[in-house]
Amino acid sequence: MAAIWEPESRFGIWLEIETLAAEGMEKLDIIPQGVSAAVRERAAFEVERIDEIEREVKHDVIAFLTNVAEHVGEEARFLHKGMTSSDVLDTCLNVQLVRAADLLLTGIDRVLAALEKRAFEHKLTPTIGRSHGIHAEPTTFGVKLATFHAEFQRCRARLVAAREEVATCAISGAVGTFANIDPRIEEYVAEKLGLEVEPVSTQVIPRDRHAMYFATLGVIASSIERLATEVRHLQRTEVLEAEEFFSAGQKGSSAMPHKRNPVLTENLTGLARLVRSAVTPALENVALWHERDISHSSVERGIGPDATVHLDFALHRLGGVIENLVVYPENMLSTLESMGGLHNSQRILLALVEKGVSREDSYRIVQRNAMKTWKKEGPLLDLLKKDPEVSERLSDDELEALFDLDYHFKHVDTIFQRVFGKS
Amino acid sequence: MAAIWEPESRFGIWLEIETLAAEGMEKLDIIPQGVSAAVRERAAFEVERIDEIEREVKHDVIAFLTNVAEHVGEEARFLHKGMTSSDVLDTCLNVQLVRAADLLLTGIDRVLAALEKRAFEHKLTPTIGRSHGIHAEPTTFGVKLATFHAEFQRCRARLVAAREEVATCAISGAVGTFANIDPRIEEYVAEKLGLEVEPVSTQVIPRDRHAMYFATLGVIASSIERLATEVRHLQRTEVLEAEEFFSAGQKGSSAMPHKRNPVLTENLTGLARLVRSAVTPALENVALWHERDISHSSVERGIGPDATVHLDFALHRLGGVIENLVVYPENMLSTLESMGGLHNSQRILLALVEKGVSREDSYRIVQRNAMKTWKKEGPLLDLLKKDPEVSERLSDDELEALFDLDYHFKHVDTIFQRVFGKS
Amino acid sequence: MAAIWEPESRFGIWLEIETLAAEGMEKLDIIPQGVSAAVRERAAFEVERIDEIEREVKHDVIAFLTNVAEHVGEEARFLHKGMTSSDVLDTCLNVQLVRAADLLLTGIDRVLAALEKRAFEHKLTPTIGRSHGIHAEPTTFGVKLATFHAEFQRCRARLVAAREEVATCAISGAVGTFANIDPRIEEYVAEKLGLEVEPVSTQVIPRDRHAMYFATLGVIASSIERLATEVRHLQRTEVLEAEEFFSAGQKGSSAMPHKRNPVLTENLTGLARLVRSAVTPALENVALWHERDISHSSVERGIGPDATVHLDFALHRLGGVIENLVVYPENMLSTLESMGGLHNSQRILLALVEKGVSREDSYRIVQRNAMKTWKKEGPLLDLLKKDPEVSERLSDDELEALFDLDYHFKHVDTIFQRVFGKS
Amino acid sequence: MAAIWEPESRFGIWLEIETLAAEGMEKLDIIPQGVSAAVRERAAFEVERIDEIEREVKHDVIAFLTNVAEHVGEEARFLHKGMTSSDVLDTCLNVQLVRAADLLLTGIDRVLAALEKRAFEHKLTPTIGRSHGIHAEPTTFGVKLATFHAEFQRCRARLVAAREEVATCAISGAVGTFANIDPRIEEYVAEKLGLEVEPVSTQVIPRDRHAMYFATLGVIASSIERLATEVRHLQRTEVLEAEEFFSAGQKGSSAMPHKRNPVLTENLTGLARLVRSAVTPALENVALWHERDISHSSVERGIGPDATVHLDFALHRLGGVIENLVVYPENMLSTLESMGGLHNSQRILLALVEKGVSREDSYRIVQRNAMKTWKKEGPLLDLLKKDPEVSERLSDDELEALFDLDYHFKHVDTIFQRVFGKS
Repeated sequence: MAAIWEPESRFGIWLEIETLAAEGMEKLDIIPQGVSAAVRERAAFEVERIDEIEREVKHDVIAFLTNVAEHVGEEARFLHKGMTSSDVLDTCLNVQLVRAADLLLTGIDRVLAALEKRAFEHKLTPTIGRSHGIHAEPTTFGVKLATFHAEFQRCRARLVAAREEVATCAISGAVGTFANIDPRIEEYVAEKLGLEVEPVSTQVIPRDRHAMYFATLGVIASSIERLATEVRHLQRTEVLEAEEFFSAGQKGSSAMPHKRNPVLTENLTGLARLVRSAVTPALENVALWHERDISHSSVERGIGPDATVHLDFALHRLGGVIENLVVYPENMLSTLESMGGLHNSQRILLALVEKGVSREDSYRIVQRNAMKTWKKEGPLLDLLKKDPEVSERLSDDELEALFDLDYHFKHVDTIFQRVFGKS
Repeated sequence: MAAIWEPESRFGIWLEIETLAAEGMEKLDIIPQGVSAAVRERAAFEVERIDEIEREVKHDVIAFLTNVAEHVGEEARFLHKGMTSSDVLDTCLNVQLVRAADLLLTGIDRVLAALEKRAFEHKLTPTIGRSHGIHAEPTTFGVKLATFHAEFQRCRARLVAAREEVATCAISGAVGTFANIDPRIEEYVAEKLGLEVEPVSTQVIPRDRHAMYFATLGVIASSIERLATEVRHLQRTEVLEAEEFFSAGQKGSSAMPHKRNPVLTENLTGLARLVRSAVTPALENVALWHERDISHSSVERGIGPDATVHLDFALHRLGGVIENLVVYPENMLSTLESMGGLHNSQRILLALVEKGVSREDSYRIVQRNAMKTWKKEGPLLDLLKKDPEVSERLSDDELEALFDLDYHFKHVDTIFQRVFGKS
Repeated sequence: MAAIWEPESRFGIWLEIETLAAEGMEKLDIIPQGVSAAVRERAAFEVERIDEIEREVKHDVIAFLTNVAEHVGEEARFLHKGMTSSDVLDTCLNVQLVRAADLLLTGIDRVLAALEKRAFEHKLTPTIGRSHGIHAEPTTFGVKLATFHAEFQRCRARLVAAREEVATCAISGAVGTFANIDPRIEEYVAEKLGLEVEPVSTQVIPRDRHAMYFATLGVIASSIERLATEVRHLQRTEVLEAEEFFSAGQKGSSAMPHKRNPVLTENLTGLARLVRSAVTPALENVALWHERDISHSSVERGIGPDATVHLDFALHRLGGVIENLVVYPENMLSTLESMGGLHNSQRILLALVEKGVSREDSYRIVQRNAMKTWKKEGPLLDLLKKDPEVSERLSDDELEALFDLDYHFKHVDTIFQRVFGKS
Repeated sequence: MAAIWEPESRFGIWLEIETLAAEGMEKLDIIPQGVSAAVRERAAFEVERIDEIEREVKHDVIAFLTNVAEHVGEEARFLHKGMTSSDVLDTCLNVQLVRAADLLLTGIDRVLAALEKRAFEHKLTPTIGRSHGIHAEPTTFGVKLATFHAEFQRCRARLVAAREEVATCAISGAVGTFANIDPRIEEYVAEKLGLEVEPVSTQVIPRDRHAMYFATLGVIASSIERLATEVRHLQRTEVLEAEEFFSAGQKGSSAMPHKRNPVLTENLTGLARLVRSAVTPALENVALWHERDISHSSVERGIGPDATVHLDFALHRLGGVIENLVVYPENMLSTLESMGGLHNSQRILLALVEKGVSREDSYRIVQRNAMKTWKKEGPLLDLLKKDPEVSERLSDDELEALFDLDYHFKHVDTIFQRVFGKS
């Protein structure tokens, strides 16, 4: 990802744009035949030389063209005819953002693949669902992962849309009127670059496109944060239902074997904040003055590489975390059972009601036993079996059935079908 | 828009959700036939009474159901069976956001209609294009407006996508496992409400959807800011190429007739900042803990109404500004000409080159005359006519042709065709 | 807090500013003696009437003055002489923000008092310190609270500074040149209102002051979030070391007694996001155009009341949470001990080294026993006592001393002295 | 500024902290005498070597100490005794932020000096004050600059306060209890580094301090934006009252001499957005989990160098812009007069009232003539002289006096005295 933003890449894209534009102009007999061929044959550039020229002429595109001309010779003077610098700069930026999006899609796909694999692996691994950090009702670790898979599917679709937002090409000359360049050149270059024509540019490609792009990265970063936060919670000492993979040599602490810190997901949490920080400046970049000002430029030189590089790194780090996540199903089960079966109290209540007990009495009976379980006087099932008001209506078998975990998992197939298209 | 967020609306949507869920349960024989009919016939609620009950039971959905039961009677106890509060709350929020999006689309359509009308009206009204706030080359006021039309078309498409993001329904019970409710109820309610089924919910509908929604509002707000900034610039005393409509009675200042302030577009600039401020908290809302926590709720109670109401107001205010914008074509023309034709210097240079003058000499000749024009010694055309080095190559007619404004407008049709689908 | 932002308050402050300005003018014989006395005697206003007039004249200050004149009569025409609307509006806003700051300081003081009380109460209540969510070394719950007390002390100092930032008064006329008003009026009004004179205003009081004010609120909100997050962690089912107070009648769940949700601190987490969202628009408000534009106004109408009301509510809610926090020292102790004493492994290692064992051997010995403890084969102390390589160097008494918790608490007095000025 | 953030600087600070801590321990006889002397004599490190070791041990501080020990030998093993990595990392970060603040203060001082010099130079250069971008009343360019000087004075004071916020040192060991390190070491190191002791640290130095620091940078950036925006407005073609300095060789456009773009201040506008983007992640960094997590780290590795380097660059760029700003007093005057004296209409009205004309009649008379001026029928003064209803009350001399610019400038001395302490 960093390579996309290197000067070599940028100038390489500039050269491609200028050459394609020359091809287009040749087809329309605007410049002599053979220019683009000469450029393709002999063009080269050196970053240091361009820098050197730029210090003199204080204009990056002119410096670049001058350096290219040193290699190409005479034909080079036909390059850039009727174009404005923004035609090159903005189309190049969009090419870079499109390439960045493609890499990010690869990262998302890795996360999706890891989530799917682990979700099916733990499709029926029981674990307690928690609302407000408090035990609620059972779910499975596979369902938990499915929620993230569905979320990253959405992120993928959003990124595809964001990629489309910036996949445009503008070769429209100063203030975008095509005064000195034929719109067919733009169409030609766009097609060759796999981009859409920008319907109307001022001088620049409108920055609402880029705002949407970076806003989308911010949303993806927030989804990363949700998954990272989940892992951090699962790894905390008191929970330890899952753990980031620790390599043999790696040590959290020299003597304390439990000191395995979720440093990767903590790092991801911080990276999410960083990526999100690109959203507001990108939004502030939209309202350029009149046909353009250059205030967007320093912002994009910062957030362009930063947000994409950080997000790319984060997605692959996240992929690795999920691929290698050490899951402790036995801990999940013991956590689930640690409340003595209290999470089934509502089912008991409903069962008593169905046996003809009034709702008020059922509530009183269940609550009485639940309080005992809460005070560690025994698992709820045991207490209920011993409670005459219960046992006269519900047999031990019936009671045990009410504590059956599978009851909660009967629709897991449906959920998997919806999320993964298979179950 | 504000009405969407009133308690009456919210409770009305709750009632609809509960009733539809009851219908679904009847179809599956989960509850007795006739419940939903009874509810439809007799259900009512009073906001004050709900508040009163809530103060006691400290639970909004229970308070609501209690109040409804006071009207419906016995059948009401079958309502909400197997459901969790979030099923009602989150589906309701999405219904509200979908309705808000529909209103916002109306607002965008008004802006689009106004922009299109005024763009065609001024399709060929010459005006100077400015980069960096400095005169560059001519464009037309219609083309200027076309850039905004294209931008708001994109905003419209984004809003349609954002609407789709939140157009989901979840009726999946505690921690989203459907343990006590059949997934077919969810499908039934979703269809009746015109929503998609949420493929997998934790307990809540995932907040990445809402993050994307509010991020989109932030982008739209930024586009509003760009247009508002343009009008503010055009109205400043030294430019005065366009002006917000001033009603007869309205006064900017008691004695200074020029004191007509662009207060509407300044207001829009501030509103853009306000709407954008919803984006970051919406992003921070994504990473809820485990199957849910309630931290998102206070945020949404704030940004839900605030961002949509402000944006709705802003879109209509903007629509009004464009509809009634007072445009001064004569001022546009005199501004354009105020630089004495300097914006044509490059065309002259190219014409001399075509006449066989070396590029260096052409540059020297043009620069010499341009400097005189810049020092107010005369319009460039007049000076060129008098310069023997020019006049021996270019006749007065040829020179005048080089100052022809239409040269810049020859592709306006193309641009309009692209943006409006007609020209 | 909400009252500060009511129209009644605002107009009341306007009246006070106008009256004080009149007093100042009388002293300088700029207006006839007796005007301010007449105003003080007879002035009144009605919000509805002002609204009614404003709909006509479209100017809030003129509408207000007109309404006041209806009560005061003839003398009212001397009010506002040489002043500009911003003189009244901006000085009023600052008065409101100063009053808001005073209320917020009361809220912070409540939090500080609660933290101090509970910190001393639990000065030596042992609890495990956690880094990365993983058990690290022992600390006390009092020390934990002391870190928050120190943080809120800093927040208090920052808020005092922020209050000072906005405690200024400007009565400087259009574009701030005092062309039509004597600077001594400004000095007089400022002194009477307990404000500083704004050294130089454009037409408005510069918005960097307000940016700093709202940025400070954002920092305070983040400190609230840190404390709220701590409580949420402590209350989660697997930890349960502390809990928000639950009133007798309050129910988290009808049948599950453990379902006490940390809803107050979750709510505080959301409120922190909301308050923080005011920071960026306040920063964007700074760069007004030239001597002023009105874009800041809609922003401030939003964030002024919202940020202060939310923060005020949050501080008092937080104060209540801390005052009533249910602390479970026995759970803290059992959590601390749940790792079998592993957190002392480094002390053992150092003790063996002091007894002449090489660092490598010490490490090997400790690690061997620590791994057994980690695998639940017994508390570390028991295992060490039974390990001959240990027991030949360290007696049981010496070993037990190495597991003494007080070792970790010997500097708690120092910390308390630093934070609270007493221990 | 960039040098502060280089690995060499960071490790150099680490070495200083470790050496000072060793000195402190020697004084308390915790480690043998001579250790710190040996370290001071022989210590060295190589960034590549540290990286190499870190790849193996995956711990930066251990890698650093290992490399140092390779140079120092035996004595090195006494370094870091009882300390935790955060003691070194966090104290180092604060040293870096303090140094950064010192450089930023130099930048602000440059801006202040430039503003003061240019303000006095143009203390009485008349220019039109503008509200809403519309001409309002006259002010001087010096007063305009004075408003920025006062603002940057405030920014300076804020930065001094922000520097103080982070000027703390923590050497308190794991979870901050001083279990294995004497608090007097911390006091010693703090004093030697010119820092305050952190009253209580968890394991880390609390991040509310850094949040306040970066929030302050965000406010300063916004003040830069205000000044940059002013210059951009003044340089636009239609205004041209001031201009960024253009070096002889520099060219905005090859043939259009007016094409001098305010690229420096546009760049500053973008940089302001970038610096501001650090504020929100810094606020999000405050709520670390329990005694610490590491999520803040990736954020700080980004915003630490980025925000300070960008702001430093921006302050010096701004200083240069003001120092070299090309001011056009004659354009300021002609702009001021371009409205034909309309800005004096209120003074005329008041003068007529003082001559006994009713307010209503005065208004009618002035408005009638103002409208003519607005329609370009002549300067207001000329029209008034010719209007019999005016001339019978006000002589030509009296009228001319009412158009005297000095009337507006009589309190400039007072303003300068307040802002600069001299006039």
